[in-house]
Amino acid sequence: MTVAREIRLKSRPSGMPTHDNFELVSVDLPEPGPGQVQVRNLWMTVDPYMRGRMNDVKSYVPPFALGEAMQGGAVGEVVASNDPSLKPGDLVQSMLGWRDAFNAPVGALQKLDTHGLPPQAFLGVAGMPGLTAYVGLLRIASLKDGDVVFVSGAAGAVGSVVCQIAKAKGHTVIGSAGGPEKVAFLKDIGVDHAIDYKAEPDLTAALMRAAPDGIDVYFDNVGGEHLEAALTAARPFARFAECGMISMYNANELPPGPKNLMLVVGKQLRIQGFIVSSHADMQAEFQRELAGWVREGKITWKETVFEGLERAPDAFLGLFKGENLGKMLVKLA
Amino acid sequence: MTVAREIRLKSRPSGMPTHDNFELVSVDLPEPGPGQVQVRNLWMTVDPYMRGRMNDVKSYVPPFALGEAMQGGAVGEVVASNDPSLKPGDLVQSMLGWRDAFNAPVGALQKLDTHGLPPQAFLGVAGMPGLTAYVGLLRIASLKDGDVVFVSGAAGAVGSVVCQIAKAKGHTVIGSAGGPEKVAFLKDIGVDHAIDYKAEPDLTAALMRAAPDGIDVYFDNVGGEHLEAALTAARPFARFAECGMISMYNANELPPGPKNLMLVVGKQLRIQGFIVSSHADMQAEFQRELAGWVREGKITWKETVFEGLERAPDAFLGLFKGENLGKMLVKLA
Repeated sequence: MTVAREIRLKSRPSGMPTHDNFELVSVDLPEPGPGQVQVRNLWMTVDPYMRGRMNDVKSYVPPFALGEAMQGGAVGEVVASNDPSLKPGDLVQSMLGWRDAFNAPVGALQKLDTHGLPPQAFLGVAGMPGLTAYVGLLRIASLKDGDVVFVSGAAGAVGSVVCQIAKAKGHTVIGSAGGPEKVAFLKDIGVDHAIDYKAEPDLTAALMRAAPDGIDVYFDNVGGEHLEAALTAARPFARFAECGMISMYNANELPPGPKNLMLVVGKQLRIQGFIVSSHADMQAEFQRELAGWVREGKITWKETVFEGLERAPDAFLGLFKGENLGKMLVKLA
Repeated sequence: MTVAREIRLKSRPSGMPTHDNFELVSVDLPEPGPGQVQVRNLWMTVDPYMRGRMNDVKSYVPPFALGEAMQGGAVGEVVASNDPSLKPGDLVQSMLGWRDAFNAPVGALQKLDTHGLPPQAFLGVAGMPGLTAYVGLLRIASLKDGDVVFVSGAAGAVGSVVCQIAKAKGHTVIGSAGGPEKVAFLKDIGVDHAIDYKAEPDLTAALMRAAPDGIDVYFDNVGGEHLEAALTAARPFARFAECGMISMYNANELPPGPKNLMLVVGKQLRIQGFIVSSHADMQAEFQRELAGWVREGKITWKETVFEGLERAPDAFLGLFKGENLGKMLVKLA
């Protein structure tokens, strides 16, 4: 019998979550039953979309249940197996993060071949965030030659891949992020104009300086003021990939939308929301292209790592304070 | 020498235009020069988009010039010709409305074959408003079998054609308009659920009652509260054709956008603006289909007519007070 720890949703947040919403609990883990394996998680991810699951509302993913362990992407190692398809030492991906070990039927796991990448890359650049960047830029925003691309949350797990794919394809890229460290990172990855939105009194003016002729594509991770600036800077027929609006996720009372939304008509803009799971058909193409870009040094990545399951709430809360440079991860073993 | 009258832009409005912004002026009209004809306008149209041209801002159509005659769609009759391509009695379409007669080179005119329709229909159902409805519904909103369609400004020149095309194609249609007379008209043309937005304390609640399972297509002529209601009622993957936002056109200070715009992400919505002139390639297909629908009695129309050029400002201002049922027109002769 092993003792595992898991983090449960203790109460639902109103506005910005706090540590009181989480509870660290120890549970007994029996030997895995037939068809099951026991997995020790090595890495788990925290992502902005999890904030929505803390609310008791119907959405594209069901809410977390009160008093039960939270869920999310994780990479782990099989430590005991009761199924011929997996053996101890195998690496597996699962949606069973927020715990340091678990038993699960093999059908809930995906065996991981890292192709020489570190395993946690599959929670970031090579995983869901990377695919999100790829889908949003190429399919939703219909990136085409000559487009000027604006990315908000540009130093984050998704945004930094968007910037690098656009650069790899030869585009002018404007990235917005908060603080000098992130801006330096954006310059490192080749972004043409890096905007420190925290230092700009007028984001629209800053964007217009960076893109005096306007933008053709906006990859939105932030919403709010960034979306308003993008509407003003948009050229006719610009396309907006609406990936997320982290500026809104913790609002108790939703702030008003952009007051210049009317520009969507006269400029003939297309504003389209998407969720990566609806575009799983692009996975193989993405992995093939990504491998090439990584080999050629065109795509790199950063990680912000918290150590230990007990730090997972800190890592998660840090997302909303902009504490992550690149992918926010928790190292569990 | 003929004396013609024209309406000039005397001053630019701030907020809602008033009569003081217009000036009725008499001008001398010489005989038409070589390659020119003289046209007596029979009908002119007033349309919401003209409000934008009264501002001195760059947009998809240039602003009206101060002190010059305004412009807009018109149907007229050639009364004198100095070019072999047109003869007295021919009907012509032009963008030279807001005047009762004019001289113009034949290249500025389009000869009109009415195919048995009244000539003013080419300013409405068979003209730009009809094509706008067709383009927005079929191309921009990608109407497909089974879609539930919501239309705002549903009793207007564009909206009433949207409703009828959607009904002709077998869809459930919810139309919103202001006042009992318009609601009665919507029922006459077969709209399944007609919402009198002026009588509804909560437009979102009214829309959810009309479409308890949500909407798949929103054809937006209004913006504001209607757009917010549509976002709430939208099913996943709904498409919004953004044709206009008349609720905003006269705002001195733009009102905030919809506070539920964040739904665009989770519901994977597509919000797309368009201008009919970018889709002129659909004109022939539209005219063919429209002729069939009119013959089969599936598409009918209403007109609200002001008589005399001097009433044109009244007709135009009436658009923003919802005074028109169907196409707002000015009969000039």
